[in-house]
Amino acid sequence: MNRIKVGIVGGTGYTGTELLRLLARHPMADVQVLTSRQEAGKRADALFPALRGFCEAVFEAPTVERLAQCDLVFFATPHGTALQMAPELLARGVKVVDLSADFRLRDPAAYRQWYGHEHTALDALAEAAYGIPELHREAVRQARLTAGPGCYPTAVQLALAPLLEAGVIETHGIVADCKSGVSGAGREAKIGSLFSEVAESFKAYGVSGHRHLPEIQQGLAWAAQSPVGITFVPHLVPMNRGIHATVYARLKQPGLDLHALFARRYGQEPFVDVLPAGDHPETRSVRGGNVCRLSPHLAPDGETVVVLSVIDNLVKGAAGQAVQCFNLMCGQPETLGLVAPGLAP
Amino acid sequence: MNRIKVGIVGGTGYTGTELLRLLARHPMADVQVLTSRQEAGKRADALFPALRGFCEAVFEAPTVERLAQCDLVFFATPHGTALQMAPELLARGVKVVDLSADFRLRDPAAYRQWYGHEHTALDALAEAAYGIPELHREAVRQARLTAGPGCYPTAVQLALAPLLEAGVIETHGIVADCKSGVSGAGREAKIGSLFSEVAESFKAYGVSGHRHLPEIQQGLAWAAQSPVGITFVPHLVPMNRGIHATVYARLKQPGLDLHALFARRYGQEPFVDVLPAGDHPETRSVRGGNVCRLSPHLAPDGETVVVLSVIDNLVKGAAGQAVQCFNLMCGQPETLGLVAPGLAP
Amino acid sequence: MNRIKVGIVGGTGYTGTELLRLLARHPMADVQVLTSRQEAGKRADALFPALRGFCEAVFEAPTVERLAQCDLVFFATPHGTALQMAPELLARGVKVVDLSADFRLRDPAAYRQWYGHEHTALDALAEAAYGIPELHREAVRQARLTAGPGCYPTAVQLALAPLLEAGVIETHGIVADCKSGVSGAGREAKIGSLFSEVAESFKAYGVSGHRHLPEIQQGLAWAAQSPVGITFVPHLVPMNRGIHATVYARLKQPGLDLHALFARRYGQEPFVDVLPAGDHPETRSVRGGNVCRLSPHLAPDGETVVVLSVIDNLVKGAAGQAVQCFNLMCGQPETLGLVAPGLAP
Amino acid sequence: MNRIKVGIVGGTGYTGTELLRLLARHPMADVQVLTSRQEAGKRADALFPALRGFCEAVFEAPTVERLAQCDLVFFATPHGTALQMAPELLARGVKVVDLSADFRLRDPAAYRQWYGHEHTALDALAEAAYGIPELHREAVRQARLTAGPGCYPTAVQLALAPLLEAGVIETHGIVADCKSGVSGAGREAKIGSLFSEVAESFKAYGVSGHRHLPEIQQGLAWAAQSPVGITFVPHLVPMNRGIHATVYARLKQPGLDLHALFARRYGQEPFVDVLPAGDHPETRSVRGGNVCRLSPHLAPDGETVVVLSVIDNLVKGAAGQAVQCFNLMCGQPETLGLVAPGLAP
Repeated sequence: MNRIKVGIVGGTGYTGTELLRLLARHPMADVQVLTSRQEAGKRADALFPALRGFCEAVFEAPTVERLAQCDLVFFATPHGTALQMAPELLARGVKVVDLSADFRLRDPAAYRQWYGHEHTALDALAEAAYGIPELHREAVRQARLTAGPGCYPTAVQLALAPLLEAGVIETHGIVADCKSGVSGAGREAKIGSLFSEVAESFKAYGVSGHRHLPEIQQGLAWAAQSPVGITFVPHLVPMNRGIHATVYARLKQPGLDLHALFARRYGQEPFVDVLPAGDHPETRSVRGGNVCRLSPHLAPDGETVVVLSVIDNLVKGAAGQAVQCFNLMCGQPETLGLVAPGLAP
Repeated sequence: MNRIKVGIVGGTGYTGTELLRLLARHPMADVQVLTSRQEAGKRADALFPALRGFCEAVFEAPTVERLAQCDLVFFATPHGTALQMAPELLARGVKVVDLSADFRLRDPAAYRQWYGHEHTALDALAEAAYGIPELHREAVRQARLTAGPGCYPTAVQLALAPLLEAGVIETHGIVADCKSGVSGAGREAKIGSLFSEVAESFKAYGVSGHRHLPEIQQGLAWAAQSPVGITFVPHLVPMNRGIHATVYARLKQPGLDLHALFARRYGQEPFVDVLPAGDHPETRSVRGGNVCRLSPHLAPDGETVVVLSVIDNLVKGAAGQAVQCFNLMCGQPETLGLVAPGLAP
Repeated sequence: MNRIKVGIVGGTGYTGTELLRLLARHPMADVQVLTSRQEAGKRADALFPALRGFCEAVFEAPTVERLAQCDLVFFATPHGTALQMAPELLARGVKVVDLSADFRLRDPAAYRQWYGHEHTALDALAEAAYGIPELHREAVRQARLTAGPGCYPTAVQLALAPLLEAGVIETHGIVADCKSGVSGAGREAKIGSLFSEVAESFKAYGVSGHRHLPEIQQGLAWAAQSPVGITFVPHLVPMNRGIHATVYARLKQPGLDLHALFARRYGQEPFVDVLPAGDHPETRSVRGGNVCRLSPHLAPDGETVVVLSVIDNLVKGAAGQAVQCFNLMCGQPETLGLVAPGLAP
Repeated sequence: MNRIKVGIVGGTGYTGTELLRLLARHPMADVQVLTSRQEAGKRADALFPALRGFCEAVFEAPTVERLAQCDLVFFATPHGTALQMAPELLARGVKVVDLSADFRLRDPAAYRQWYGHEHTALDALAEAAYGIPELHREAVRQARLTAGPGCYPTAVQLALAPLLEAGVIETHGIVADCKSGVSGAGREAKIGSLFSEVAESFKAYGVSGHRHLPEIQQGLAWAAQSPVGITFVPHLVPMNRGIHATVYARLKQPGLDLHALFARRYGQEPFVDVLPAGDHPETRSVRGGNVCRLSPHLAPDGETVVVLSVIDNLVKGAAGQAVQCFNLMCGQPETLGLVAPGLAP
């Protein structure tokens, strides 16, 4: 069978590198175009020596001409780039998985508000699937364009979907207290991401408003089929990888078997793992793996449900989930190239 | 003026060491007795080389005889030890600051439930002050026995007291999502505290119930003058020191000037620092310092207040606050020996 | 083709877990027996949730009877265990790869000196291959019993072998300054391995003598075909995985093309990667991968050669190299199940 | 007594902040001018919240006019700045402690070679003291201008000085394998200093030549009174603070009592602590403290001496040692404001 020709736009960040790592083991993907304006001419494995022996790709400046030779193009770019290039690629028959925020928010006004510029690809936006397969599998399977969700929104939506779909929690007053490793801040030279600013410290940020909030609200409203009131506070953890969402909601009725509800909802899902009742997931258990580990708990007050949800922000929170969508969009087995245990310690 | 003769029972843990570090710079404290059954005969600075040049103390087995020669004895022991020894020391005219949990819970039944044995020092319990000076200063000043609060309870109570005292939040449905550095787990040889179990990972624990929950509930009820419903979830952060409490509550009325409320409440406090409006405290800013940095925020929904509160679990969360109480109990200036900037990075 | 029946004795440490992780992806290995006295009856993935979905194994108490049903048994135990059990397994036709120190030192007197008890399996010792395939491939291929080398010795021998084999350095006055992540200390409840003892700190240990010194001396003498004088100092790095050896030796003659020498020696090796001239290897580039990355440098004095050598102590320094030996001993392709890029960041 | 008026040029880096932290507790220093072009108008404690309550200083653009009002000015700037401003300040009667490299190398040609531009302050250079008081106390005491040594050179010179002064080691073939925490790389937005580039990894750098090599060679030659041949390799450790130098040299004669030699040499030094024989210093034992902890060992070969030497790179390796020099230059007790135990854990 012919391998699928793949392009990656923006391969110098952590998400792009992670795509290269995952696709290096993917039996059906063939990375033919890898772009970076800044590193054009340089081998990817010169920048990321962990890839030595697994990746011959050389960065080149991005052009639609070259990318149009691919079957599918991943965008691992800051927001704004896919917005410009995706429509033309779609028009030329190329499928797109965008890992940036450009096609996540269905409401162009919300996009403008949170990202500071107009959404200029409204047709593409209208057709984009939202790429959490466990919640939108059929849409992704049929999509030409999939919006890879944010890392926090993935962890939070998977934690709350069973409860909202079943209608067992109040849909207001929810709290999502989320913690992320530092790779989520990207591979940009910023003071705030320096080792000596972050190591041996912990802090919240963006309490007054974070771009992932409207995305979370949108996704939860889909699950609940009604608006959902949630407070979302992200925190920075001194570690490389991992997101831990601790989600609090009020049960409508006491006595629910939370574990059974989650086990039923996710029992057939290859990439969502409901832990034995009472267990607490650790982020290291998903390090490098495309899996969300979940565990619902009843708080001592008997009426608050606490869901603990962990993912690797670069895998199930970004590149891994993107490859999962790629598999679906290209008619491959959903798990192809994605089955590997996490690396712990 | 004569220096105050001090004893420390249990000086081999992180709390005990931190007491030695702080008292080494204290102009009025003279550590005369330092006990450890296991390390008897060994110099403290052989165990903790950071103390070399600052501490001549030698561990000895604990006896009431020796401890009774002190003016005040700190207990930096697991629960159960102060319970046994404190009454006799009090009877012999020795003051006590207990950093363990033995005198935190006013209700002996709650103590038995959470700590697994009877409380056998009910008279002492009845007279014990609860050692957060910012909330119970006069009681501490007059106490012969002070219960040093838990680290989580300190961070959470300081975060919520202004709101509860002012009666501006709902007293149920509160969430305290707390994160602690690993030194909070103590200096015991446990698999779960190994570097390779904890580093590069993040997890919650004790969701179904943690010993600090009844202590938090007790303290909040004092502040609110009514029962308070709260869900408390602790998490483990891969760093040595620091606690970050993220506390969520529902405002009764919109439009409150949260920052002004906190600034008014803590404006004269030497060890509580309300950050400029909008700032997010980092745990590293309090590393090694006896200070709680706080910052109240209004969530985007306009009705949820989010208070961020950080302390060094070994200082304001344990040894430093104990020295603050010691100062009050011994008629010294409250800040004596405790004024030093945090160490960042 | 029938899969190879594998047993693992001592599966609760980091080396044992890593074997489980690697064998989970190995197409020809079938873990049939997994032993741990302490955890008997427990599933491996209950202890190591990262394995959930990849490993059905349940710990059982070790018996020769059960292990004799395997084709090959790995020992991931403290020293002393393989010493006792390996001879009987060999006698029953079972191959053995011992990851402990029991069969590393050819000289039983040296074993007694460094490990504190007699070597009681001299016949097995006499036939044991030393399991660095890049240096002893044929011996390993024909072995019934292979001694998995220590992690430091692997990094140091691979760094020095090209120079010693070529006879281009002085064989005395060599320095091997080595640094290891904390997982090398094992998954035992020891104060010295606690997060709060190790994080944010760095230290040397064992300067006056370390068990890996005689093993290094033995291996270098094989390469040099004469005794080699070396000073070896290990250090502890606050990270989970990784060894970095910095090796210093004196060139006999100036003007040697060091990079060409190394490239020639290791050019065909799938698991030794000589970096481009001038590069410095990072341990993260080999995290989770069975590879040694090397880079020889000439110091500014023009006569000192500095070789930088990194491995993942749990993979190429332990479990991965053991699987590499397993492949050779069982007639499989040497790289089977071992080809995966490192995880960085 | 009047307090000493102090200026700090370049107060936004880690060295500058650390100066502010140390001087905040110094009873005789009064920071009157604090400069930063970029942050002019901003309070220092807005940038470094750990200083809140301890520092009222506000950044201003640097001018000789303002700085000339000080008694002494610290330069915590990249190289090149003190070179330009120091001569004029000296001419106006202001003393200078330069923490940059501008006055470390006595040979202007070496300066040009390693720092890439001409040395344009040759008179100042000629009179500059080299600021390791333990090795050059009288010169510092009488100096108007002191060059604060590099962090690596401080650790290495203190490790080797006793041996070289006593003439007991060979003066060629010395190896200084050094490891530094990440704060040594400064508070600049560089990819290579990002948390996710550095955490959970270890690497060497600058093997082919590092700017601290000529400074080390110069200092060792002073101690030995002859040229010294040394290979210096720096490494990056995933921690904030701390330098560990592991220094290897060949003894001229066996049988020397190394510990006695070091104890004699440093017995009266308040800031050099020779550990009990056989101990290994940890960097955390000096965290935040102005002390070098040392321990000489004899390697198993009986002829190689291994000296382990640790400092906090920001304190004894930079700001603390600068304050020590400041005390000497201003006629204060050498230890004033510098006596505090390290922070561990």
